[in-house]
Amino acid sequence: MSAAGGNLYADLAADPAAERFEQLVARQGVTIERIVSMGQGSPDGFWYDDPRDEWVALLAGAAALQFDGDAHERRLAPGDYVHIPAHCRHRVAWTDAHAPTVWLAVYLPPATGESAARESGRA
Amino acid sequence: MSAAGGNLYADLAADPAAERFEQLVARQGVTIERIVSMGQGSPDGFWYDDPRDEWVALLAGAAALQFDGDAHERRLAPGDYVHIPAHCRHRVAWTDAHAPTVWLAVYLPPATGESAARESGRA
Repeated sequence: MSAAGGNLYADLAADPAAERFEQLVARQGVTIERIVSMGQGSPDGFWYDDPRDEWVALLAGAAALQFDGDAHERRLAPGDYVHIPAHCRHRVAWTDAHAPTVWLAVYLPPATGESAARESGRA
Repeated sequence: MSAAGGNLYADLAADPAAERFEQLVARQGVTIERIVSMGQGSPDGFWYDDPRDEWVALLAGAAALQFDGDAHERRLAPGDYVHIPAHCRHRVAWTDAHAPTVWLAVYLPPATGESAARESGRA
């Protein structure tokens, strides 16, 4: 049995025209993705509203997230991670325009009815 | 709704006497864990044989994994990740003895369809 792999910092040729989304794992309802940004942010007025919890870490570069209802954006430095609950509306306020920003995102399986209600809230 | 977070490189006070396992997420059958090693490896003859797929990245330091049946160990540098299938027997051959090695491990839900309640610790 073999174990496939790679390097999170390989091939960082960033594209100022578009973020790069690369799926590293998609199994058992879990998606692990590397995202390479170069100055991109979410469009004005756009909010992510995902039915899945997302755990995301910033591994290189710099960025800021904005959460709906928060007065201030949340700036992220390398190593910073955030657990974004399902349906927690957020957007990428900005990413560093001068160097690649590397994100590692883990999307959890969507909660289903009863079991979701039993989950302890993270508030 | 708020989003909890932290930093993967915070509080790296490594303990030469024991690896540190910190659960960052345990939801929907998925466990995300930070592990800080300082010279530890698996005991001789010990093999992890987990019913869950494990995706693991080495974020800092240096280490090597050994897979059952492979002639050579697999050395990992920062950014290297490996997707270890369920029941793929492996062990940690060594970790850097002189600086903290930081791992990020994502355990996927078991493939059996059985509840994630079966889930237990690493090993």
